[in-house]
Order: sequence, then C-alpha cells, then structure tokens
Amino acid sequence: MHVHTKPCDYDHNFLNMCEKRGKSSMKIVIPFKSENAKSRLSSVLTPDERRGLALCMLNDVIDATDGFDVDILTPSVLSGANIESRILLSELGLNEALNEYLRRHVEYVGGPVMIVMGDLPLVMNHHITEIALSDSDVVIAPGKGGGTNILCIKDPSRFRVDYYGTSFLDHLQIAHENDLTVGLYDSFAASTDIDEPDDLVELLLHGYGKAAHNMLTDLGFVVAVRNGRAQVERSGNVL
Amino acid sequence: MHVHTKPCDYDHNFLNMCEKRGKSSMKIVIPFKSENAKSRLSSVLTPDERRGLALCMLNDVIDATDGFDVDILTPSVLSGANIESRILLSELGLNEALNEYLRRHVEYVGGPVMIVMGDLPLVMNHHITEIALSDSDVVIAPGKGGGTNILCIKDPSRFRVDYYGTSFLDHLQIAHENDLTVGLYDSFAASTDIDEPDDLVELLLHGYGKAAHNMLTDLGFVVAVRNGRAQVERSGNVL
Repeated sequence: MHVHTKPCDYDHNFLNMCEKRGKSSMKIVIPFKSENAKSRLSSVLTPDERRGLALCMLNDVIDATDGFDVDILTPSVLSGANIESRILLSELGLNEALNEYLRRHVEYVGGPVMIVMGDLPLVMNHHITEIALSDSDVVIAPGKGGGTNILCIKDPSRFRVDYYGTSFLDHLQIAHENDLTVGLYDSFAASTDIDEPDDLVELLLHGYGKAAHNMLTDLGFVVAVRNGRAQVERSGNVL
Repeated sequence: MHVHTKPCDYDHNFLNMCEKRGKSSMKIVIPFKSENAKSRLSSVLTPDERRGLALCMLNDVIDATDGFDVDILTPSVLSGANIESRILLSELGLNEALNEYLRRHVEYVGGPVMIVMGDLPLVMNHHITEIALSDSDVVIAPGKGGGTNILCIKDPSRFRVDYYGTSFLDHLQIAHENDLTVGLYDSFAASTDIDEPDDLVELLLHGYGKAAHNMLTDLGFVVAVRNGRAQVERSGNVL
C-alpha cells in the first residue's frame, strides 16, 4: 500500500493522522473501487451510471459511519466524489491492501478496526455502533453467498483478512486458528450488498432516503412483479 | 378453512383448544404445503427430496417456536411428518386460508398472532421471542425480493394478509390504512427463505445443526466456489 502520487509520504501522514485520533478508538476502513465498478450490473446500467451508483453507495456507507474515524482504501483517485474521509490509495488487490493496512495500523496506532464494504447502502449508523460495541474478538456481518460484508477485528495483530469466495468460512477459520471469539451480526440490511440486478430490488424496497436509492429512482427504476417475483424495471422496460 | 376430514368439528375443536391456552398468549401459525413443495428446487432435488426438505424445514421452524402455541395450516395431511403441533387443514389459497384463520382467531380467542413461513430453517427461538416482545402493532421480518417471512399482528381484527408479489409493501400499506405502527425486524437469518438452488448455499453455510442442513449434507451437497461465487454442488457435480 502506498500513497499513489507521493509514496514516500505515506508513513509520515499515517502516523500524524493516527496520533490526532488517539489509540483506543475504533477505526473504520471502507475498501472502494470506482474503475469498472459493479461490472455485474452492466446489463442494466452504463459504466458512468455504475460508477455513480458506486459513489452514492459509498456516501451512504460513510453516512452510516457518522461519529467514527473513517479511511477509504481505494486503487484510484475518486474524482467527482464529495468525500471528507481520509483517502488512502493502494494499487494492491483487496486482500493485500487490507492486510497491509492492518499491519500499518497495528504498527502505528493499535486498537480495533472495522472493515465495511462500500456497497452496503442499507447499512445504518446503529448497525455500525452495535458491531463496534460487541465484546467478541471478531464480529462478522455475513453477506449473501458466503460473503463477509462487515468485519470487526478487536486486535488486528491477531487476524488477517481473506476476501473473495466463501470469505465467511475463511474468516471463521482464521479466527479459530488464532483462538479468537467470533460474534455473528445478524442483519438483513448488512447482508445486502449490491452486486447484481436482483439486488437493486432490495435497494428500491428498503433503501428509502438513501443516496443510492434516490439515484435509482431518478434513473426511472421501479419494482415490478413478474411471474410472482419482484424485479427491477426501468422506464417501463424489463431489464 | 375447515378440518378436511371432519368439517363440522372445526369450530368446536378450535374453541376447546383456544380455551386451554388463555387469551393473552401469542399464537403462532405456520402455513405449509407438502404437495409439489419447493418446485423451484426441481433442478437439484427429486419430488420426494423436495418434500423431505420441506418437512425438515418445517421441523426447524417448529423448533424455533419452542414455548409458543403453534398451529400448522396446510392444504393436505402431513403423512410421514412427526409433528406435535395442531394441524389445521384448509384447501383455500394462502391468503384466503390465513385471513380465515385470523377471522376465527379474533372470533374465538383474540390476542396476537405471528405468521411464520415454513421455509425459514435459519430462524432461531430468539428471533421469534424478540418479535413477540415488540411493542409495534405489526412487526415484519422481510424476506428477499419483497417478501414477508414473519408477520406479527397484535390485533388481527385490524389487519388482513396479502402474500405473494411484493407482500412487504402490501403489508406496510395495509398497516398504514389501519393506522397501525410497524416495526421492521432486521435479520439475515429471518430473511433467508429457501426457494431456489442459490438459497441452499445459505442453508449449508449458516444452518449447521438444523434438520434441513443435515438432510442436504446427507444428500451430498457441498458449497463450492466457481468464478468467485459460491454455489451448491452434489456428489461432485455442479447443479
């Protein structure tokens, strides 16, 4: 991981920022990718729309982290984003970037870290707060299909992340190997990551007031029932 | 609604059973269909296996309702089922059968009713208890795609059900029309109904110890990651 334009400043900046915040507070990090974002929505959204939706969802997640120190971990500059959080650039893959982030956090700061995926527009502040208050060494909010949507690590020196595939099982295993207690955070909202057209149904139905919900409705998306199943439609066309 | 074999006994039996239980307790009703059950799983399970899985899930849901009075509302005799709950036979459609059930409950018993779908094998007793303890007039645990997986109605004389399609929105609307407060119960486990092959992934990953989970593993189902996504496989074959 490094600051994309000024690699040599990374450690210095990291240390300065951390010292201002104190060691004991929960740090939240949100991995985010805007380039070719949400490619599995290509059948229903243009590349610009997908990028816009990804940024809206990021803003929704940042809203949900109100009151916490937040870093955005991203491989590219977020042009067009109105984001006040600290942005850390890393060209590494997701797992490598996050594990490097955790290593530096342990080295310079210490204290718990919560990793919140950037595509969880239904997450609310009370979810984040409840997870932060857990006594468990590790808290996992599972996503659909074996994913890990939120991962809270009390002592990052004793954990490493392993996203992709059935990361839920992998994170349970890593916690077990390190003798860490695991709490499962059971939330429909936190389990709902937006990857595919069917996921947009959940955003339209349950995301009222969220930036990502507003963008979808502005684009003309509605929920329609076809053959007994809810689907998204846009401007009268089944997608 | 009527008792299939002895229609004339229905009212008498209903009243006797209700009197034994007292008026104030929460009644739970589980709609269940075993004939051609879970047809959207036809690509991965035989008719007998689908029926067996449906019965396992029903038993898991009944286990989760421990401590409550439970009725099973079903259109056909549950041969082969080892179920101690009271079984009410009705040949009506789901909505008609449930609304008739509610009408009779109001007439003969009164008190709150919780409708729990029979295909929620991840639901635990603490979910049911927490929902029962809610102060809201109506509590909804949403399912994926606009469904209503659990619906708790404090005063059934002021509510009617409307399942299928986006029943979540319909139930919000019905509550609004009747000036009822609504609580949303936010649970990944309660949101997970088992309808399609992808849903089996959730049962395999999160249903450890449940009857339905055991049946799937006995049949040789495992979770495998293909192209970065978790899918079920059976005896080494992708389904």
